[in-house]
Amino acid sequence: MLAQCQPLYRSGKVADYIPALAQVAPQQAAVAVATLDGRLHSAGAAQQSFSLQSISKIFGLVMAMNRLGDELWQRVNMEPSGQPFNSIVQLEWEQGIPRNPVINAGAIVVADVLVSHYSASKTAFLTFLRRLTAEEAIYADQQVYLSELEHGNRNAALAYLMKSFGNIEAEVPQVLEHYFHQCATAINCEQLARSLLFLANRGVQPHSNEQVCSRRDAHRVNAILSTSGMYDQSGEFAFKVGLPAKSGVGGAIVAIVPQFGVITAWSPPLNRFGNSVVAMQLIQQLADELGLSLF
Amino acid sequence: MLAQCQPLYRSGKVADYIPALAQVAPQQAAVAVATLDGRLHSAGAAQQSFSLQSISKIFGLVMAMNRLGDELWQRVNMEPSGQPFNSIVQLEWEQGIPRNPVINAGAIVVADVLVSHYSASKTAFLTFLRRLTAEEAIYADQQVYLSELEHGNRNAALAYLMKSFGNIEAEVPQVLEHYFHQCATAINCEQLARSLLFLANRGVQPHSNEQVCSRRDAHRVNAILSTSGMYDQSGEFAFKVGLPAKSGVGGAIVAIVPQFGVITAWSPPLNRFGNSVVAMQLIQQLADELGLSLF
Amino acid sequence: MLAQCQPLYRSGKVADYIPALAQVAPQQAAVAVATLDGRLHSAGAAQQSFSLQSISKIFGLVMAMNRLGDELWQRVNMEPSGQPFNSIVQLEWEQGIPRNPVINAGAIVVADVLVSHYSASKTAFLTFLRRLTAEEAIYADQQVYLSELEHGNRNAALAYLMKSFGNIEAEVPQVLEHYFHQCATAINCEQLARSLLFLANRGVQPHSNEQVCSRRDAHRVNAILSTSGMYDQSGEFAFKVGLPAKSGVGGAIVAIVPQFGVITAWSPPLNRFGNSVVAMQLIQQLADELGLSLF
Amino acid sequence: MLAQCQPLYRSGKVADYIPALAQVAPQQAAVAVATLDGRLHSAGAAQQSFSLQSISKIFGLVMAMNRLGDELWQRVNMEPSGQPFNSIVQLEWEQGIPRNPVINAGAIVVADVLVSHYSASKTAFLTFLRRLTAEEAIYADQQVYLSELEHGNRNAALAYLMKSFGNIEAEVPQVLEHYFHQCATAINCEQLARSLLFLANRGVQPHSNEQVCSRRDAHRVNAILSTSGMYDQSGEFAFKVGLPAKSGVGGAIVAIVPQFGVITAWSPPLNRFGNSVVAMQLIQQLADELGLSLF
Repeated sequence: MLAQCQPLYRSGKVADYIPALAQVAPQQAAVAVATLDGRLHSAGAAQQSFSLQSISKIFGLVMAMNRLGDELWQRVNMEPSGQPFNSIVQLEWEQGIPRNPVINAGAIVVADVLVSHYSASKTAFLTFLRRLTAEEAIYADQQVYLSELEHGNRNAALAYLMKSFGNIEAEVPQVLEHYFHQCATAINCEQLARSLLFLANRGVQPHSNEQVCSRRDAHRVNAILSTSGMYDQSGEFAFKVGLPAKSGVGGAIVAIVPQFGVITAWSPPLNRFGNSVVAMQLIQQLADELGLSLF
Repeated sequence: MLAQCQPLYRSGKVADYIPALAQVAPQQAAVAVATLDGRLHSAGAAQQSFSLQSISKIFGLVMAMNRLGDELWQRVNMEPSGQPFNSIVQLEWEQGIPRNPVINAGAIVVADVLVSHYSASKTAFLTFLRRLTAEEAIYADQQVYLSELEHGNRNAALAYLMKSFGNIEAEVPQVLEHYFHQCATAINCEQLARSLLFLANRGVQPHSNEQVCSRRDAHRVNAILSTSGMYDQSGEFAFKVGLPAKSGVGGAIVAIVPQFGVITAWSPPLNRFGNSVVAMQLIQQLADELGLSLF
Repeated sequence: MLAQCQPLYRSGKVADYIPALAQVAPQQAAVAVATLDGRLHSAGAAQQSFSLQSISKIFGLVMAMNRLGDELWQRVNMEPSGQPFNSIVQLEWEQGIPRNPVINAGAIVVADVLVSHYSASKTAFLTFLRRLTAEEAIYADQQVYLSELEHGNRNAALAYLMKSFGNIEAEVPQVLEHYFHQCATAINCEQLARSLLFLANRGVQPHSNEQVCSRRDAHRVNAILSTSGMYDQSGEFAFKVGLPAKSGVGGAIVAIVPQFGVITAWSPPLNRFGNSVVAMQLIQQLADELGLSLF
Repeated sequence: MLAQCQPLYRSGKVADYIPALAQVAPQQAAVAVATLDGRLHSAGAAQQSFSLQSISKIFGLVMAMNRLGDELWQRVNMEPSGQPFNSIVQLEWEQGIPRNPVINAGAIVVADVLVSHYSASKTAFLTFLRRLTAEEAIYADQQVYLSELEHGNRNAALAYLMKSFGNIEAEVPQVLEHYFHQCATAINCEQLARSLLFLANRGVQPHSNEQVCSRRDAHRVNAILSTSGMYDQSGEFAFKVGLPAKSGVGGAIVAIVPQFGVITAWSPPLNRFGNSVVAMQLIQQLADELGLSLF
């Protein structure tokens, strides 16, 4: 499968909105499948670290749900947005309430919750990820982090607009620092697949037997990923793959297969929606051949 | 379950945008479950006819997919809209291409396809429904139909706007006639549940063994319903129920349970999103107790 | 001045949204100045008829103000729109109330007033224009009229959207017929200049001494033209010329010089805002040399 | 006239978006008329200082035009906005180019020009105002300034959004500091009337004979004020008064009467558009009785 994807590299374009991401070599790909019974299959550069980017929104969301409970849903909606991931227009219409927690505005509200409820939110985020992956060596890439900070004007606009509506509690620079730090987390396909098994398992992380979140919240996260996880290609992905999933501009996509496991794929070149061309193809093919579509 | 829903009647409001619908008695409810193995369970007024309304969009869509093939997707997108079901703003932004075939604009494009590709599209629609329900007595309610025609100014605006972008081929009044006729179809919970079994069965209607649409298109319809079927409550429904579903302002909701069957529920009072209060509650409870969520 | 404008013809493009207008020869131009003391100066093809188009909105507005009085301003606003002349988005936001009577939506509301208050509004419009020009030979160009009717889908969308908000009283096709008929009026530069002298003269038509509208309404029309008469170039025109003015896609522009007279210019090629390239230049130069700017 | 306005105080509401402004006593009013021949008439609290607020945009604009020349108009448009003064939606649509320099976004671009082209822009602004008023005692109100800084989240959102489009050169906090400092200038009716005489006099300040800006730029400023100076009531003001004007939420309105002079009026309670109820009434009445309307 990886070999067949070779011709696809050229049809995408590595994210270039920050210099640190633009430098990543495009011709790389990996795939990993972690199952609830503890097996891990992978191929390609599955231990090569990449930037977590928007996929970090899942982890932040679970942390915020655990801290704030249902109160969170008064500050962020759970509906698909039908708008570019960083749209400011909808935020204005809906008076500072983001459509869902996986568009940027929603993830910034989530970051505000973390900053306001943890004494050291950046460390808490890394600790959470280390626990989920059972690995100590999970860090934020400092170069990416600083690069994001420097080019984060649109996210700053989103944050200040929400603050003007009273939907950001902490200071904006602090919230953005957390958000960009979280996005800059370096991870690889195998780690990522293992880390999210609890979402396929009603909230319970199989290797530790820890109840990471309630069964109800695991369903909720999957539901949100299912309608909104793939930017403005969520509908098409639902048809082609039929699984809750999230992509990041670092080139990774993670798909949750309830009662079965997690599939991750990674390759830097992105299509015009911001989704990795090769990762989409890999996940679609796997889902197809294994008959994983929920529909 | 039906008895427990009694207090909910008052929290909703019967659709009143046309007089013919406003006259329906509010305190009615029904539920029906049709399974792939041919069983049919129902309770309440399950043989009481109601107005199909937006649920008719599913049947029109399947007919148009069968006629036009993938060409259809050049005229209508398959992404969630994040906008009210009858929004004209998004249509303007996206140059006459509706976000998906289950918002009004998309269903009007579908109606245009049917009008342009069938010599008698209204009859063809009824014939299709009769075949799927295996019942001859399926008709459009003339009073509802005429009432819709008279109050269809916003839909006319959508249609003319799309025509100005070249995305409507037939004459607008003819397209709207088909659309309103299709919406005015009278059906009951049992008939509706049976009629859509093919979507839970990879395109094959169990009682006739007919391949109503391709397996791929059955997946596609379910995917669209899953992200966009419940108006601006689709995300919440995905979380609470976790099934592809479609509601109509006639008060019905239909949910597809892949590999299992179809659940329908009906009760006229609607919440502010246009979804039946009681039907949502009934389907949620059934899905919950039977563990049907896909997530 | 006309000779100097020769090189400008090529920088514009004749209106081509309807075939009847697209056929007009581009290399034509005229200018006329009518003064309150009865003099009329002209140059170029000043007796060559062209299509009145949006300039007809002024006459319709005056008729509607006379009939409806201040009640009109409950159905149409008087603020600049900051949007393309045929935008449907703003109409949706502001619940069917157009921003002003010289964008299409506003002029359609005005047409609805005329249709509803005159037994034969098309004839009444022509009669009004004949009285103002003191000429009998003012007609609508039938070819243009039919062409407009055939390509009027966007205007139909605007009208049906407003009807859905309750802001159109008559039947939409009848309203559009009036509107397109009025737009299709054929007139020449000399006639047009003379016809609007009352706006420069506190409502009194000099040659007949008729009080065409109240002084207050003459001011109001000039104010509206001043902020909104030149499509999305109204601000630039205010700076360059500094006079209330209205343009039409037939290639004409009319400018009101309070207490002095009226300037008209005509030449078919339009710039990207829909304003005649040469007519703008001619009026700007005249206003400049005669020191007519109000500022 | 001032006495007659007494009943109007209650129909407006003092600006309360920042505490420092909310404390101003509502029942105050003043009017001043400065003429080109050097006379100054005033009534009421004409020497009572108020917060300049949005009227400061005029001075900033003149400074920026003088420094940057026509290059300024590549960064800000000169068309009416048809949107609330602080709308972020239009800015998104038009890729970071504000509609005109007197909406907030436009004034922030102007502030960026000043910050980038003056070594000490805040001082330069005060110096400019002192020169125009011929008074040394012009200062920014520190309490208002700090209050604005603290509540400036929406303006920060506008600034960061424009920066993300590359239309802000300096650091956003520095630009906002200048902008809020300029808004916080304390001035009185007499000073304000005298300071802007050059706009009624082709760019020449009568008392000093200084050419403050070119004749062309004086026209341009008047044109912009005429279409956009009174927020979303600019069209109505054009009709009722017919003069270029600018209002500020401090309660002042200034109107330019070309070739004659400047009228200022002040009274804190604002109508729903953000314009002073009493100041509008005073200026309208004066313009009416003196026959000053340009139309």
